Amino acid sequence: MSSHPPIETQALALSEAHCLALDAQDPLAARRALFTIPEGVIYLDGNSLGAMPAAVPARMKQAIEQEWAVGLIRSWNDADWYPAPQRVGARISSLIGAQGNEVIVADSTSVNLFKLLVAALRMRPGRKIILGENGNFPTDAYVASGVAELTGAQHRAVAPADVMTALNDDVAVLTLTHVNYKSGQVYDMAAITRRAHEVGALVIWDLAHTAGAMPCDLNGCEADFAVGCGYKYLNGGPGAPSFAFVASRHQEALRQPITGWHGHAKPFEFTQTYVPAPGIDRMLVGTAPQMGLFALEAALTVFDGVDMQQLRAKSLSLTSLFIRLVDQELAGYGFGLATPREDALRGSQVSLTHEQGYAIVQALIARGVIGDFRAPDILRFGFAALYLSHADVWQAVAILKDVMASGIWSSPEFMAKKAVT
Amino acid sequence: MSSHPPIETQALALSEAHCLALDAQDPLAARRALFTIPEGVIYLDGNSLGAMPAAVPARMKQAIEQEWAVGLIRSWNDADWYPAPQRVGARISSLIGAQGNEVIVADSTSVNLFKLLVAALRMRPGRKIILGENGNFPTDAYVASGVAELTGAQHRAVAPADVMTALNDDVAVLTLTHVNYKSGQVYDMAAITRRAHEVGALVIWDLAHTAGAMPCDLNGCEADFAVGCGYKYLNGGPGAPSFAFVASRHQEALRQPITGWHGHAKPFEFTQTYVPAPGIDRMLVGTAPQMGLFALEAALTVFDGVDMQQLRAKSLSLTSLFIRLVDQELAGYGFGLATPREDALRGSQVSLTHEQGYAIVQALIARGVIGDFRAPDILRFGFAALYLSHADVWQAVAILKDVMASGIWSSPEFMAKKAVT
Repeated sequence: MSSHPPIETQALALSEAHCLALDAQDPLAARRALFTIPEGVIYLDGNSLGAMPAAVPARMKQAIEQEWAVGLIRSWNDADWYPAPQRVGARISSLIGAQGNEVIVADSTSVNLFKLLVAALRMRPGRKIILGENGNFPTDAYVASGVAELTGAQHRAVAPADVMTALNDDVAVLTLTHVNYKSGQVYDMAAITRRAHEVGALVIWDLAHTAGAMPCDLNGCEADFAVGCGYKYLNGGPGAPSFAFVASRHQEALRQPITGWHGHAKPFEFTQTYVPAPGIDRMLVGTAPQMGLFALEAALTVFDGVDMQQLRAKSLSLTSLFIRLVDQELAGYGFGLATPREDALRGSQVSLTHEQGYAIVQALIARGVIGDFRAPDILRFGFAALYLSHADVWQAVAILKDVMASGIWSSPEFMAKKAVT
Repeated sequence: MSSHPPIETQALALSEAHCLALDAQDPLAARRALFTIPEGVIYLDGNSLGAMPAAVPARMKQAIEQEWAVGLIRSWNDADWYPAPQRVGARISSLIGAQGNEVIVADSTSVNLFKLLVAALRMRPGRKIILGENGNFPTDAYVASGVAELTGAQHRAVAPADVMTALNDDVAVLTLTHVNYKSGQVYDMAAITRRAHEVGALVIWDLAHTAGAMPCDLNGCEADFAVGCGYKYLNGGPGAPSFAFVASRHQEALRQPITGWHGHAKPFEFTQTYVPAPGIDRMLVGTAPQMGLFALEAALTVFDGVDMQQLRAKSLSLTSLFIRLVDQELAGYGFGLATPREDALRGSQVSLTHEQGYAIVQALIARGVIGDFRAPDILRFGFAALYLSHADVWQAVAILKDVMASGIWSSPEFMAKKAVT
């Protein structure tokens, strides 16, 4: 049985009409038309791979068939390929409370985290601790361990509740994911950053489940560093490149270890000695992954003119509705709730627990409700506010109820394990 | 004036008819139809960004509009996105004399070189020297310096002629680019690898200007490691992901430092402790850059059924023709030749020197002959044997002669410097 608290029962019944009424008042409802969502699908996995913005195919066609095929090498200048990492970074900066010159797109999230962990350790000579928490997304822990082994530092992973007290003057750098990938729980970025700074530590925030999902005020929190993912709520497509944030006050001192030519002050002078570029550009390593950048840049247009507070309000409306509908419709089926009920503590996902979670998720997917499963018992549902409606939430819960009531989830086709992502 | 020897004069005049006759006998001539080359362009910059294989647009459309937009997260399994790094790596392996399970596609060339340099140093504890040469592509030197600083090793860059004698039992790892990016000169992979092994050193070969341009026999040379580029002669598109080769005998001992979740033995079990995947998979870090992989995989179909010895023969025929035509047509214009005349020492490019090289390249580009310039005085021309003809070479030299004879290169529009790639 799940160790999480059981779902609660509800006094007042929620109806489909209520959901439709919420949609009628939704100021972001028109944004759904900016996405291509297949018929018959309720897509609750935008926290893993965002849906495709409708602007992407035309942009890719132009980039491939004109800029590459016809422009060829000239497009590095003529089609402005060269400044794309900075330009797309600046677009993302406005979603996370940063300045345009503090964000750049490069490499993968894991590689960017590696760069920033080493750079942070170098800024705190004499301190040996990389502090993390033991429920973080595994790659963050793996990368921190790898950096520790490489540099002689020590990776200390504590329970989430112990992070604040574990911050002391041995800590060089704290690395946390702002919104937990399993539970959807949100850390208090301002309070933790403040406490870290009080003890002289730096903080690297992983915004994988934050950027595009909810507002974030990096500069308001005096954040040091952040990394994030292009393919989740930013909808950049499979394996989209990652972004990195370096507060402007740290940029001149930053010495990241993967010193490739695109991070050089003058890459096209082809000197043999590395001189880091000014500012955020020194986070670059090799030639930018333009195919991913083309798609990500086009995808980001869905955020043009979006008020991130309004997006947050809708996201909370969707997730709280989902929780309340699960309470109302699914009592007695053995689900637990792994996500906080308190709005302020919840990102843009809701995770249920169930000991048959894997098979239930497979049965849901077969019915067009796409969420995902995270071992050992988490059913994860992401709510991307730009393309989901309250009616979608109603329908998803109705289908989940049907899957449970019919017992269809226990059929062999859903119980059989396959590779999951 | 250039420090390179002057071009030679030629006894026997080469004619356009001779070039057309060579094309008529070219067994690879039909391959040109597999590429989209714009009208009016002779593309001699495939060593920087390969031309677009005609198969790419349809593959990208399917990947984006079907696999991403409709398949969504399911495509990681259903469209075989997940094994793409291994699958595309196996395709490349056949071009470079490796086994399918020895090559994987991930990250950029610089990042892969970083991983392998650290891994190689770990295999040679007690040795401190990363040996390189001082004419290597700068990013290789920058990355080696960065690794040295990070690990306490020392990066020693010697003159190309001194590499063999600098190999001694202090050297942990030698890193060389097989075909020099400026001169097009080829190192003797077999002899150097053998000598390195005699002194107990490992070798990392950078195949940026080798893979797809000429045959290469990694296993025949008992090579240890290699990295290479997806966007040059492999035609994978701008910023295409890189490949890495790890000889099977080294895979189980390989400990690369950027320990991300896709290099984990069981990434979807989400444990907190890093356990490297068996085999080449441990070279992976973050989620694979699928957009780049889609294009690269489609691009590689142009090599299906190509005999690499036949490709080499055509490449040498094109480059030797270019050199002889430059000799014949351009004497007295101040050009030098920076590329070896001896076939065995020449990759698939020819570099001329000229003190006004920058402006001459700009003038050529304006006339549709696209090469590139490398500071301080190199005019670089790449000859991709799958899409260039001997008639193209004739035409390119005729236009270069016209640019020189007319003096058009000295007009202000060509003299003005702009960002170059």
